[in-house]
Amino acid sequence: MQDAIVLRHDQHAISQLILNRPEKFNALSSEVMTLLQNHLDSIAQDKTIKVVIIKAHGKAFSAGHDLKEVRHREDKAFHEALFNQCSQMMLSINQLPQPVIAEVNGIATAAGCQLVANCDLAVASPQAKFAVSGINFGLFCSTPAVALSRNLSQKHALKMLLTGEFIDAQQALNYGLINDLVDESTLSQHTLAIAESIAAKPAAAIALGKAMFYKQLKMDLPTAYQYASETMACNMDTDHAREGIDAFLQKRTPNWSK
Amino acid sequence: MQDAIVLRHDQHAISQLILNRPEKFNALSSEVMTLLQNHLDSIAQDKTIKVVIIKAHGKAFSAGHDLKEVRHREDKAFHEALFNQCSQMMLSINQLPQPVIAEVNGIATAAGCQLVANCDLAVASPQAKFAVSGINFGLFCSTPAVALSRNLSQKHALKMLLTGEFIDAQQALNYGLINDLVDESTLSQHTLAIAESIAAKPAAAIALGKAMFYKQLKMDLPTAYQYASETMACNMDTDHAREGIDAFLQKRTPNWSK
Amino acid sequence: MQDAIVLRHDQHAISQLILNRPEKFNALSSEVMTLLQNHLDSIAQDKTIKVVIIKAHGKAFSAGHDLKEVRHREDKAFHEALFNQCSQMMLSINQLPQPVIAEVNGIATAAGCQLVANCDLAVASPQAKFAVSGINFGLFCSTPAVALSRNLSQKHALKMLLTGEFIDAQQALNYGLINDLVDESTLSQHTLAIAESIAAKPAAAIALGKAMFYKQLKMDLPTAYQYASETMACNMDTDHAREGIDAFLQKRTPNWSK
Repeated sequence: MQDAIVLRHDQHAISQLILNRPEKFNALSSEVMTLLQNHLDSIAQDKTIKVVIIKAHGKAFSAGHDLKEVRHREDKAFHEALFNQCSQMMLSINQLPQPVIAEVNGIATAAGCQLVANCDLAVASPQAKFAVSGINFGLFCSTPAVALSRNLSQKHALKMLLTGEFIDAQQALNYGLINDLVDESTLSQHTLAIAESIAAKPAAAIALGKAMFYKQLKMDLPTAYQYASETMACNMDTDHAREGIDAFLQKRTPNWSK
Repeated sequence: MQDAIVLRHDQHAISQLILNRPEKFNALSSEVMTLLQNHLDSIAQDKTIKVVIIKAHGKAFSAGHDLKEVRHREDKAFHEALFNQCSQMMLSINQLPQPVIAEVNGIATAAGCQLVANCDLAVASPQAKFAVSGINFGLFCSTPAVALSRNLSQKHALKMLLTGEFIDAQQALNYGLINDLVDESTLSQHTLAIAESIAAKPAAAIALGKAMFYKQLKMDLPTAYQYASETMACNMDTDHAREGIDAFLQKRTPNWSK
Repeated sequence: MQDAIVLRHDQHAISQLILNRPEKFNALSSEVMTLLQNHLDSIAQDKTIKVVIIKAHGKAFSAGHDLKEVRHREDKAFHEALFNQCSQMMLSINQLPQPVIAEVNGIATAAGCQLVANCDLAVASPQAKFAVSGINFGLFCSTPAVALSRNLSQKHALKMLLTGEFIDAQQALNYGLINDLVDESTLSQHTLAIAESIAAKPAAAIALGKAMFYKQLKMDLPTAYQYASETMACNMDTDHAREGIDAFLQKRTPNWSK
């Protein structure tokens, strides 16, 4: 199983999905995307998993689509299916009840960079570098642009998309593409600490909150506030919220195990 | 009156609303929110007030909802009414003709952090710390998420919401949650200087501009430009704009007192 | 022709539009906007031009509208036409197939600041300063607010609009108003290097990508991903994308000249 091109390691309610084809720069071939999709679909139904980490073996986080595969067939229907598969996988991360953290320790380009932008959170080491380099091949990174423009300011996103140039991990931090920049030696430990912090919270409240966060982004303010108020009243109408607040008022640790 | 739990001090066209229950960490109880709402409703009709500052006495800016009150009753209708009241108060800040500046000199958590994010401008000292900590009690900060996601980049907002962790004032500055970070000793002076700068402008132009700013945010670009062009032509069709430009062209101070 | 108030210099597929009325602080008079509009309309049809740079002669990039002209007539219809002309010119930059880079080496105020925000990319020297100063004359910068609020975080944009105060080039960089801050001595060279990098890519892919970038900004995520996937499949169905990827796989330079 250690030879699988996508590994899954579950421990303490945290599922790590590990891209494991370093010699191919962890390209997101159709096969890899299918495996990721299957893992995500399975995790979506798995009440024991509370956080997902996506990481990679080798020097590259992911170089994006497998260009040999992209050029394998010429018909537009094939490319539509391939890009739809990729977008569906990205949307599944977004729609997953569990938060997903990208842990980046190497280059992340094109759909690999999109994967980082598309995750809920992202952590990187100084070894990480990011580019949406499709334009260098005459293929503008349109689907990565969707995730990038929702994380970076307009001009930063456009410069990356129009020039295909790399930004380093410090720029990625400054631009909002990643949450934290930590040394390679503590990267996995740091990602796990975030994951464990989230895993310690009631999963239902996390799932409710993650879904409402994305859903309200494009609403106007009065609509967003009305939707959020209703969501919060539903959240308050649960045992875990009542127990959590009671524990706080009684200066004790909440008991959410029941 | 110095015992009121929300104080109001008006001076030089600037109204200061001061949360004054430091021993309760200036929690936004229903009573406090009603008082804030009444002040805001009154100020909205008051032509003599040109800017509002919201600040607090004590070590906390505001710890958000009063959790004892939240747990006082179990029915969902009660919680819906409570969260709606809070959202309505936040919207009133947004819809107020006068700009509202948050002056933060201590912790601001949950709806207290939302209040900062929801104000038009915010200034803080290094004593300020910010968290949307509801998730620590199993209650995802859904309504704070609305204000937070409209001020911070997606990943920064989500990390705060999913982990409940504090950010310090420097991070709040870097993330766009506050405009300025100044020493505690000069905080009030700095806030007043911004307020006085705004109060020196024609109130009608400020009110028109503030309203159009929020209204156009979610429009597509052609629609936003058309709406803004019309707004600007209406603005130009006023005595204060004609006088302001004439004064500039004649190298004199505008006379807006008439 | 060196006396024209807007100069156009084309070289190596890059068109430089140069505001050339330094003694008037390169104000965007109706005449200047008409000339810019004509150049943009011409460039939109010109397959030999791949990138546009907008820069200025003299100490000011642009001081915005010509206030004498604004006050020349009092009727609202005149002002509506003037502001519509300006918005149309800004939209034309946005809708231009070629990317547009602002090169800023002096003050950029009101509609001049808007022009920087509205360009796809922007580069500045430490000589640059930015303000949306209309409120100082009682005329809130409503149309600049549209471009500013799509580039800066909400509170940064609002503070500039409500106070009319200047920010320096370093703040403009921090806030996302400009992409790069470089010494005056290397400013033009730096802008040209970005332009040349973009000009080396297939123009059709750049045009497709620029248009999709702006179009998807206000879509919800599933809609945006579907639109982007279709766009990318269309992009892949072109000779330049096939040649670009083949060249990469064969470790050679793409031949896009045919």
